[in-house]
Amino acid sequence: MKLLEERILKDGNVLGEGILKVDSFLTHQVDFELMQEIGKVFAEKYKDVGITKVVTIEASGIAPAIYAAQALNVPMIFAKKHKNITMTEGILTAEVYSFTKQVTSTVSIAGKFLQEDDVVLIVDDFLANGQAAKGLLEIIQQAGATVAGVGIVIEKSFQTGRALLEEAGVPVTSLARIQEFKDNTVVFTEADA
Amino acid sequence: MKLLEERILKDGNVLGEGILKVDSFLTHQVDFELMQEIGKVFAEKYKDVGITKVVTIEASGIAPAIYAAQALNVPMIFAKKHKNITMTEGILTAEVYSFTKQVTSTVSIAGKFLQEDDVVLIVDDFLANGQAAKGLLEIIQQAGATVAGVGIVIEKSFQTGRALLEEAGVPVTSLARIQEFKDNTVVFTEADA
Repeated sequence: MKLLEERILKDGNVLGEGILKVDSFLTHQVDFELMQEIGKVFAEKYKDVGITKVVTIEASGIAPAIYAAQALNVPMIFAKKHKNITMTEGILTAEVYSFTKQVTSTVSIAGKFLQEDDVVLIVDDFLANGQAAKGLLEIIQQAGATVAGVGIVIEKSFQTGRALLEEAGVPVTSLARIQEFKDNTVVFTEADA
Repeated sequence: MKLLEERILKDGNVLGEGILKVDSFLTHQVDFELMQEIGKVFAEKYKDVGITKVVTIEASGIAPAIYAAQALNVPMIFAKKHKNITMTEGILTAEVYSFTKQVTSTVSIAGKFLQEDDVVLIVDDFLANGQAAKGLLEIIQQAGATVAGVGIVIEKSFQTGRALLEEAGVPVTSLARIQEFKDNTVVFTEADA
């Protein structure tokens, strides 16, 4: 997605050690217009496979996911990273290790929102080691629902997340794919949309 | 907002002890269409005061906030509840006590996203004791920016949050105002929009 790649080059900051900071338009301050375009591109890619739900994980995945849900005209569900006293019954969970934060957390979705006949598009802001997307995949499979694909805003293609998901038989659509960081700038490889 | 009140009566669950669960359309599964309408109502209410940013707090505030930002044609910023290793410079923080989770957490926004000439609309999903909104207010005031108002999806009017914000001189616009829970159902008082 050319618009996204241009925005990353313009406003992204490479912090070193494989960290790209995109807090001016995606992970902290959010550009609704870009998110809306991103949602449309995901929807266009998955419009013919009968998506019934978009699933993401709090918090940075929510903005691109809600616009994907809008473009597909389906509900969006965001998985919780933290326990909440109002979540009581029928919780589906998966363990997710974050390399960035160096902690394992329990990600959860209330089972009542996923049925066996659901066809799910997972959306997330970043794909690196694929642990978050794998956790969501596990939860959706626990519900007996189908994952039609994973839509990623920014993929770190030098890490193993994409291979992990593809080995699980799930197609990945990444709108920007980072091949490497070179001299503190981003080098892209060809994106999926 | 009649559409919202009807939805709360239809799909909300009163768990007792003042807890209303709206996880089928707002706090877990999200109805984009309702969020879009909510965003438009907030925008209509604040269209003439020169809003330059919409500020919310992760995670359930993000969906209504992004649509308010879209309707006002400004960026949205979501405050972080948890520390993140990519947030390094110029962080504005406030302590927020959650009565629901019984923990104090540090809420933060990168200072670079708030300037003195910014006019901010705060948006959040719930207003109960007002601690989260008060924390956001403090952060925005630290930046020297102005808070034009607080837009709330669901206010628990029997708690002290609204009074706290109004005493601080900030107008509150709540789209649904719960006067009490009676026999496990919701009794509304007149909403602000």
